[in-house]
This record gives sequence, structure tokens and C-alpha cells, in this order.
Amino acid sequence: MAYLNDNYLKLKAGYLFPEIARRVKAFTDANPDAVKRVIRCGIGDVTEPLPEAVRAAMHRAVDDQGARETFKGYGPEQGYDWLRKAIAENDYRAHGIEIADDEIIVSDGTKSDTGNFLDILGAKNVIAVTDPVYPVYVDTNVMAGNTGDADARGAYAGLRYLVGNEANGFVPAPPADKVDFVYLCSPNNPTGAAITRAQLEAWVAYARANDTIILFDAAYESYITQPGIPHSIYEIPGARECAVEFRSYSKNGGFTGTRCGFVVLPKTVLAKTASGEKKPLHPLWLRRQTTKFNGVSYIVQRGAEALYSPEGKAQVQALIEHYLGNAQILSEAANKAGWPTWGGVNAPYIWVKCPGGLDSWQMFDKMLTEANVVITPGAGFGAAGEGYFRISAFNSRANAEEVARRILALKV
Amino acid sequence: MAYLNDNYLKLKAGYLFPEIARRVKAFTDANPDAVKRVIRCGIGDVTEPLPEAVRAAMHRAVDDQGARETFKGYGPEQGYDWLRKAIAENDYRAHGIEIADDEIIVSDGTKSDTGNFLDILGAKNVIAVTDPVYPVYVDTNVMAGNTGDADARGAYAGLRYLVGNEANGFVPAPPADKVDFVYLCSPNNPTGAAITRAQLEAWVAYARANDTIILFDAAYESYITQPGIPHSIYEIPGARECAVEFRSYSKNGGFTGTRCGFVVLPKTVLAKTASGEKKPLHPLWLRRQTTKFNGVSYIVQRGAEALYSPEGKAQVQALIEHYLGNAQILSEAANKAGWPTWGGVNAPYIWVKCPGGLDSWQMFDKMLTEANVVITPGAGFGAAGEGYFRISAFNSRANAEEVARRILALKV
Repeated sequence: MAYLNDNYLKLKAGYLFPEIARRVKAFTDANPDAVKRVIRCGIGDVTEPLPEAVRAAMHRAVDDQGARETFKGYGPEQGYDWLRKAIAENDYRAHGIEIADDEIIVSDGTKSDTGNFLDILGAKNVIAVTDPVYPVYVDTNVMAGNTGDADARGAYAGLRYLVGNEANGFVPAPPADKVDFVYLCSPNNPTGAAITRAQLEAWVAYARANDTIILFDAAYESYITQPGIPHSIYEIPGARECAVEFRSYSKNGGFTGTRCGFVVLPKTVLAKTASGEKKPLHPLWLRRQTTKFNGVSYIVQRGAEALYSPEGKAQVQALIEHYLGNAQILSEAANKAGWPTWGGVNAPYIWVKCPGGLDSWQMFDKMLTEANVVITPGAGFGAAGEGYFRISAFNSRANAEEVARRILALKV
Repeated sequence: MAYLNDNYLKLKAGYLFPEIARRVKAFTDANPDAVKRVIRCGIGDVTEPLPEAVRAAMHRAVDDQGARETFKGYGPEQGYDWLRKAIAENDYRAHGIEIADDEIIVSDGTKSDTGNFLDILGAKNVIAVTDPVYPVYVDTNVMAGNTGDADARGAYAGLRYLVGNEANGFVPAPPADKVDFVYLCSPNNPTGAAITRAQLEAWVAYARANDTIILFDAAYESYITQPGIPHSIYEIPGARECAVEFRSYSKNGGFTGTRCGFVVLPKTVLAKTASGEKKPLHPLWLRRQTTKFNGVSYIVQRGAEALYSPEGKAQVQALIEHYLGNAQILSEAANKAGWPTWGGVNAPYIWVKCPGGLDSWQMFDKMLTEANVVITPGAGFGAAGEGYFRISAFNSRANAEEVARRILALKV
């Protein structure tokens, strides 16, 4: 009989969002009258329509598929040249960052990319994640056999956890000792904290000194409003030698159900073979994607391209302003209620300290049953998330305002 | 410095289709007058427009994304229930095959699925592939560390190659000894050979007796025209206990550039842990897909669903008949030229014996330079493909007829 991958058996059974869904269902089953009152600020899923420029481009692309002369079959697995060029030009070179078109590799999203990227890395690496953390970084390392078992708090043996807390503003500094690769997410999911230029310079200096690769998740880059917060890690000199950047159209273009993102992998990022020979990772990732992936739908790539048109850019900006407006309303309500918050300024997430000494699942249950608002308990993002919760600003304005009212009405 | 995955360094540098592209480019660069004459029958990419029913459904889905009330963000990673149900009903239960909706897991294609499926299997399995073979099965096992190095003919140590040849009609019988899993593709890429019911019964009996998992690639199922050829492995009693089926809309619905497919994974397919405990693979694959994938674009899933409408079915049938008509024209030309052929009846590929004792790359060069027709050399599919080549019937009728004329005019 075939062997299965035993590492999967180390995964904690209750992944965060299924457990939330289970509790919401139990509540609404028991309280059918409350169903219509429930407002979801849990999972970070956008709510507003896809930009008109994207829809127009996708309509045209569907029509292209209707005639032999314009029909597109297999495209390049790494993305069409016109999209890779639009990305490199608009997201990088227009900001003075040197990234070549062929250092952009288009994909169906950052969840796939951060998970699949482990395919090209070896088995003996020392790996660091922040805590709290986007659970996919951890779970994909568990699946790949890069960890031991989990302890009672859900921390896996063999992974280095870098704790974010109030003292460091939820931005951990580089560790004192050496790790081989580290995941950084800025603006951060779940805390909304953004890494400043000085902090990111320290990280790049650490990476250069220790031959560390930084896997930099910039999926929320568009939400940065304050100066002094890098939009790309490549704004920091030296990052081309040590960083891989992951970006997505999910949260700026509203592509959570449309699916497109990309990896930036400079050809200057090296890793070593078992015998110590240094080699660029770029050809390995290209080989991985061309062999195990067949590219993003032509129609979707045309939609993504439209995000870089003048209309597309303006429509994205309007979406960002909408969600950041919600974030401000929600932050203000929480602060008025006396709850300390982080994030919400350069990110669509507000990270809130649970009031009244509640733990994060207690606060989840309270918000669900008393305010009929779904939030995400901090403990779901790691042990250091205990005592906090995340409110997502992805919602209609009316819902954000209603949630603000309910927060203020809640008795803690 | 981080370790890379050394297994990638075992991969042969020249993957088949890039090498073909290189030779075509060298020829057309040297012979600019011939550019317009070149007809591509190499890579198996469809050429005809997407069915009207699919385009209409995708236009509607793009419009859905334009209003908050109908907007779709994150869907279930494993596919929308309405698509899983349409698949299970139309492709299986309508044919008397017991497959539950939740045994269907929707994806962006069979290349991704067959590659990624190795994630959930262990490291100590004995693995068999046919030869000739779809290169992705082999390369993804190399990447996963399931093989040793390649020999001079491109065969990897540790993989069991089951040779297809003229004597067995390019359908290898089960081996005498035990393997843990085996890839079967029927109708076959590249040979066009289809596994008969009796042959598939023998494979299922072998799998049941040896606890073998059959990874059954049915991407070309729609091209089956003859009775006695199973469209699904689940037509064979007992297959629910030993087989995983991979299907795609690439070659029936013309989705090569649109991207959708699915895995059928019965909950009754088991594998064992390192300690010998038997467990179903279904929860592992679901966990893999929900953690490392974010689902297929809503718009594309609506397009796939439309393939099951009465109009969609009729339009697919017309596409299949078109390509099979081409296959007949090409087969007849090859046979008239005195070249023995296989396939082309239940498949869009014709497998041809190279005339005049040419090896398969010599035949490739001859076809390119003298007939200006791009074919695929058999050696690219494995050592047993040497001496043969593949002609793809994916083309316009006019091109197929022109290729037929050029075959007959070729001097061998």
C-alpha cells in the first residue's frame, strides 16, 4: 500500500476559519431570528464590486476567446509578457526600483505562491515566522516536513517564532542568531502593523549578514497611507540579494474570487546545494511553475492588466479609500469603547486588545452572540495572538457604521 | 544560506516543448519566407473558439462581479457546490457510476493536479510510469525526490518504466511485481492508445491485489468513439477502492487558456502511515487544496458549469467531431504515405512510426525543414518513444488538410 505524507497528520485539526464558520452556524441555527443581523468582519474577504475597468477588459477577453484569430490557448505558465511588463513598470520601475520583466512570475495568488515556494527550498533550513502569523506560512511548512509536532498552544517544534507584542508594536526585530529564511508580512495580516523603513533596513542588513532569505508578503501594500513605510522591500538597498516579494490583486483590485497575483524573484537571490554550491533560485521557481502549473486564465490576466490603466488605477484607489474609511470608523469606535487598537491606518485590519480580561475565543463568542458581529480571535494566528482579536474593514460602509454602533453598545 | 531543493538539479535541462520552440525559432529565423508556411501540430493546444455557451456564462459571471449583491469573493477552495454537483451528476451518476459531489475537487487543471498530488504521498513509494509518458508525471516525481539521477537516455533511477510498444499496442500490462502507485493515461498522451475494458479490469484487479493506487488521467475521455473503452476508471468494479481520476476541460471545452479541471478522489481510497495505519487520502487532498490553493476563478467555474448545459454539450460535441475529423484526415495521409500509425480514433493524437529508419528528432527536423510542419518527436516522451512521433489533430480543418497534402508530398 502506498505511503501517505505523515506530516499532514501533524496539522491541527481545526483550521481557524472552519472553526469560526462552525461557531457562526451553531449560533444562527439556534437563533434563526439573528441570521439577518449577523455582520461578518472575520475572514479578510472584499465585498465591493470588481472595478469597471477590470470587468470591461474581461468582457473583451471573453470575446477574444470567441474567434479563432484572437483565441488564446496555453499561455506562458509564468504569465503573459504584457502583464509581466505592466507589473514591473508600474509597481517597480515607476518607483525607481530595478526589477526586470522576467523577474515577475504571475500566479493565481499569494496563498498558492507562499505555499508552493517551499517546493524549491531544501529540507534542512532554519525557518522563522512571526507570531501572530498568517497560518498558511506555518501549515505549509508542516506539510513539507519542515517542523516537528505542535505543542498544546499550537506552536510547532523546529520553527522559530518571533513574537510581536505591544512593546515592539507587533513588528518583531531580527533575531540574535541566524535563520535561513523568514516570512515577513507588511502591512501585516493579522495585526495591521506596517514595517517602517528603518525596521526593514535592519531586516535587510540582518539578511545580508546572515545569508537569510526574506519571504516578503506585500499583499496589503496598497493600503499604506503614511510616509516612511516601504511599499516594496526592494526600496531597501541590498534587498535584491536577499528577498522574494509576494503580491496579490485580491485586496486592491478585489480579486479574491477572480484570482491573480505574482512573485517577484530577482535573479540575484541565491541558495545553496547540499554540497554548498550557490545557485540562483529564479530558474528553480520558473521550472516549478512551468512544470506544475499551467498559468492563470487569459481572461483573468487581461483583467489584472486593466488595473494598471488610468481608469483602473483610479478605481482601485477608490476601493482602498472606501475600505480605509471603514477601518477608521471601526478603529474610532473601538477606541471610544476603551479598547486599545493597532493597525487600521496602513491596513484594512484592526488589531484590538480584548477588553475585560477575556481570552480571544471568549471575545469571539461575546461579539457573535451579543453584537452579532463575526471577528477573528487572535489565538487563531498563534500563541502571541491570545488576548487580541482582528476586525476586518472589508465591508459596505453601512455595515461598518452598524458594527461601530454595536461595539459602542456592547457591555463588557 | 538557505538550502535549495537539490532534486531540481536532477531534471534534464531541455524540457521537450522549449527544445521544440528553440528549433522552430532557429528555422524561421534562418528562413523568414517560411514563417507563414509553418503549421504547428506539436504541442497539444486547441485552436477553435470557446463554446458560445461558455462565453455567455462567463459574460454573465463578469457582470455578477459588478454588483455588491452578486459579487463573489473567496469561494470554497475545492470548487463551488453547483459545479461539483454538475460534474458528479453529468460525468458520473448519469452513467451509473457512484461518485458523491464532495468526492469532486475542482482545480485549475490536470497538470497542476497530477503534480501537486505527490504532496500528500510519502517518500518511500515504488512508483511506476508508462514509457512513452506525459513528461509531467516523471518531472514532478524528480522534483519531489522520488527518483535518483537520469541515465543517458533520460530514464530516472528508482522509477519503474512500463514499456508501451507495437507488441502491446502501446498499452503496457500490469507488472509482475508490486508497485505502490502507477500513472495511467487513457486515451493516451502521446500515443492516442485507449485502454480497453478488459485491460482496465486487469489493472484494477492488479491494484486490488497489490494495494496499488492508480492515478488515472482521463483528460482525453471525450474523444472516445469506440465501444468497449471505459470513459472513467470507475466503470470498473473495485476502482473506487484503488483509483484517483484526473479530468480537465482543456481538450473538450477548449479550456487550455481558460483553466479548469478536477480530481475525483473517492473517500474509499486509502494509503498508509509510516507506522502502517490505513487512512483515506481524501481529507489530505482537501487539506492540501484548502491550504495551498484558493480555488478557481468564479468566472471560470461558471464557464465550466455551462459545458453541462444542453447547448454546452452540443457545442463540445461539435468541437470533438471537428478535431477527430482532423485526426482521420491526418491518419489517412500518414497511412497512404506508408507510415504505420496508432491512435487518432479515440484521441486527438496520432502516433506515427518514423519512416526510413529516421530517429525521432531527425524526423522532427525533416518535417520542419521540408514540410514546414511541427510535430513532437517521440523521444521527448521517454526512451520507448524513440523511432516514433506524435501529430496533434488540434488545428483548423484547412490546416489539417494542408498537413495531409504535405505528408504525401514528403520524400523519405
